[in-house]
Amino acid sequence: MLEKTMRVNALYDFYQLLLTPKQQEYMTLYYLNDYSLGEIAEVCDVSRQAVYDNLKRTEVMLEAFEDKLALFKKYQERLKLFSELKSAIQLADPNGETAGILKKLENLD
Amino acid sequence: MLEKTMRVNALYDFYQLLLTPKQQEYMTLYYLNDYSLGEIAEVCDVSRQAVYDNLKRTEVMLEAFEDKLALFKKYQERLKLFSELKSAIQLADPNGETAGILKKLENLD
Repeated sequence: MLEKTMRVNALYDFYQLLLTPKQQEYMTLYYLNDYSLGEIAEVCDVSRQAVYDNLKRTEVMLEAFEDKLALFKKYQERLKLFSELKSAIQLADPNGETAGILKKLENLD
Repeated sequence: MLEKTMRVNALYDFYQLLLTPKQQEYMTLYYLNDYSLGEIAEVCDVSRQAVYDNLKRTEVMLEAFEDKLALFKKYQERLKLFSELKSAIQLADPNGETAGILKKLENLD
């Protein structure tokens, strides 16, 4: 369950701007602010079921975006390669001239 | 005009999977296979205007995806940083131990 929450959070990071404002609101309350379904229903003046359905649909959409664009998967692969590159560079370039460029590359994600 | 075509092509590379099959078909015929609007209309058995409207809508959608995800912009920034990194590494690591890792990083885009 925790693993699933972490994955939804990560996918949300990458794709939130492709969601509607309403979807973003429910996702933020539920996954980032840790509201319960009942609390969101009360705050937004809708039924608990409506919140649940919206969140489930959003999760399906996030996985569909990931299937198509694979931004999270590529990000993870990039992290791994950055780490390998850093080790290799540390040996070859102890003065760290390349470190600044690598940092910029990492910050692009 | 050529610049615009190149940009649409690039955005299409990044976001084509977020488009409908029909949008992908028209875009491929027009931008990749260089069909005219009239030729697409004939092949797909629709009006020339319908093809035009679909293509225009698709271009607007591609720019909207880029506004939100900036994949093309980040790709260009990454290319620039890869190039800087390569120059810096070439000085520090003439035996090229890091070259293989850099290649893998570039291939992620």
